Amino acid sequence: MSFKQELEKRVSRINDIISGYLPREEGYYKTVLEAMNYSITAGGKRIRPMLMLETFCLFNGRDYKVLYPFMAAIEMIHTYSLVHDDLPAMDNDDYRRGRKTTHKVYGEAMAILAGDGLLTLAFETAAGAYEKVDGDPETALIVYKRILRAYRILAEKAGVHGMVGGQVIDIEFVGKKITKDRLDRMYLLKTGALIEASMVIGAILAGASDEDIDVVRDIAINVGLAFQIRDDILDVTSSDEVLGKPTHSDEKNDKPTYVSIMDIDRAAKEVEAVTGRAVKAYESLPYKNDFLIDLIMYLINRER
Amino acid sequence: MSFKQELEKRVSRINDIISGYLPREEGYYKTVLEAMNYSITAGGKRIRPMLMLETFCLFNGRDYKVLYPFMAAIEMIHTYSLVHDDLPAMDNDDYRRGRKTTHKVYGEAMAILAGDGLLTLAFETAAGAYEKVDGDPETALIVYKRILRAYRILAEKAGVHGMVGGQVIDIEFVGKKITKDRLDRMYLLKTGALIEASMVIGAILAGASDEDIDVVRDIAINVGLAFQIRDDILDVTSSDEVLGKPTHSDEKNDKPTYVSIMDIDRAAKEVEAVTGRAVKAYESLPYKNDFLIDLIMYLINRER
Repeated sequence: MSFKQELEKRVSRINDIISGYLPREEGYYKTVLEAMNYSITAGGKRIRPMLMLETFCLFNGRDYKVLYPFMAAIEMIHTYSLVHDDLPAMDNDDYRRGRKTTHKVYGEAMAILAGDGLLTLAFETAAGAYEKVDGDPETALIVYKRILRAYRILAEKAGVHGMVGGQVIDIEFVGKKITKDRLDRMYLLKTGALIEASMVIGAILAGASDEDIDVVRDIAINVGLAFQIRDDILDVTSSDEVLGKPTHSDEKNDKPTYVSIMDIDRAAKEVEAVTGRAVKAYESLPYKNDFLIDLIMYLINRER
Repeated sequence: MSFKQELEKRVSRINDIISGYLPREEGYYKTVLEAMNYSITAGGKRIRPMLMLETFCLFNGRDYKVLYPFMAAIEMIHTYSLVHDDLPAMDNDDYRRGRKTTHKVYGEAMAILAGDGLLTLAFETAAGAYEKVDGDPETALIVYKRILRAYRILAEKAGVHGMVGGQVIDIEFVGKKITKDRLDRMYLLKTGALIEASMVIGAILAGASDEDIDVVRDIAINVGLAFQIRDDILDVTSSDEVLGKPTHSDEKNDKPTYVSIMDIDRAAKEVEAVTGRAVKAYESLPYKNDFLIDLIMYLINRER
């Protein structure tokens, strides 16, 4: 099977897994459930749960019942962040993944609540992993510890010292000059934090050693940074149709990006250099997962 | 010591506990940290952590190290819900607890992110409880299970099938006629869910039996309902100064409340009847905590 076919197969499998954790659209408050499902089924690339799954496989993880809730949870967190990011008071975007944004369809109040609902459902879903623990008490104790550790990382990386912190810097630096160093720090939080959480949680739940988890963190940080610089490049080189959202939005919003502080060729060279660091870290591990490294290369060189 | 003195002592103790989990206002994204701390230190009554603590004491809970993070977490969740509720797209309130609302001070984008940050920090803080577990493996296993169970309830009751669901109904019924039955269901979610989570988590972490936890849930549901009806009454009978926020806001916003579907005297009788159910459930328990029952009576008869 080609990489593209493998990728499609996995996206479809991940969509099935996520579907199992989505709310049924019924009851007095079904509008918000519709808005949540509208946002999360908008056809995302499922990068974060895929990285989690592939890192889990890299370390020969076996206990998928415990992994699946976390895969759904990370995608819910990613989706909530997009719903809130698109709000008029934030980036004020009308389109996302080729469809109207959540607040354009359901109104602002419902979009705020749908985001809150997805974020909370993420933690509820991940907490449900504990009901899947079986085996003797000794094994159960190990698995509970892994779940709680994964849980803490999920919350930390989604929060103010992770993704939310990155969004704050993103907003505060609109229209301002920024150094490459500070831009890197912002990207490590805004985009890097959830990618880091995805890969580190995959490793933790598979039972990787602390030493190997440190290497995974190193890979993830560089993947996140390269991914975001690639995003900056696509915002100026791609078209609205290919990207499914308006291009040149960073320029329009006066946001500092790699492309605003250096020319596109140099930004592309940065992607290469950062990618090189990720690959080097990956190669230092005694484990291999060919699909994971193909996926990383694909993300970093993607056209949309 | 009088009840008022006991209450003040406990509020002050709870404030100290919460403070220990608040972020330090430093770094590139310190604006959001300031906004979060501004919201949570605005002088709330700390009802939810207090109910959690007192329920924990009712069942002779001993492991305070595991309880404290959950006490801070429930107050963070309550605070985030107020910050988002006050937003222009939601209730559009300028004052809360006698101070300007978060978005009036920090702007809308930062208020959205401060709410997101508080909600996420709640789960991060509660997840941190697992680091406080000590003792032999057998005991640790029991405590981990309790933490994970408490965690799941925290997320569930804060989410779409809890508080967020209640807020959705609240918004959707603006300007519409509502039956008492549906209003009760809305209150059970909007206000009741977090009070239920508080008391049930206190019981779980203290090691209460499943049977006793069911009784606690019954008490909490009725306390939440009585508390909210009392809130409806105060909105029309109190003054802006005493309440610290504009009165008659439900009427202004055309929200269905107990006072909009019946007269004040009948609403007060409903409070009494619902309270009676809570007290009866409490009295069926073989445990006693005089302060808890005084607290419940105080909440239900409060003047602000």
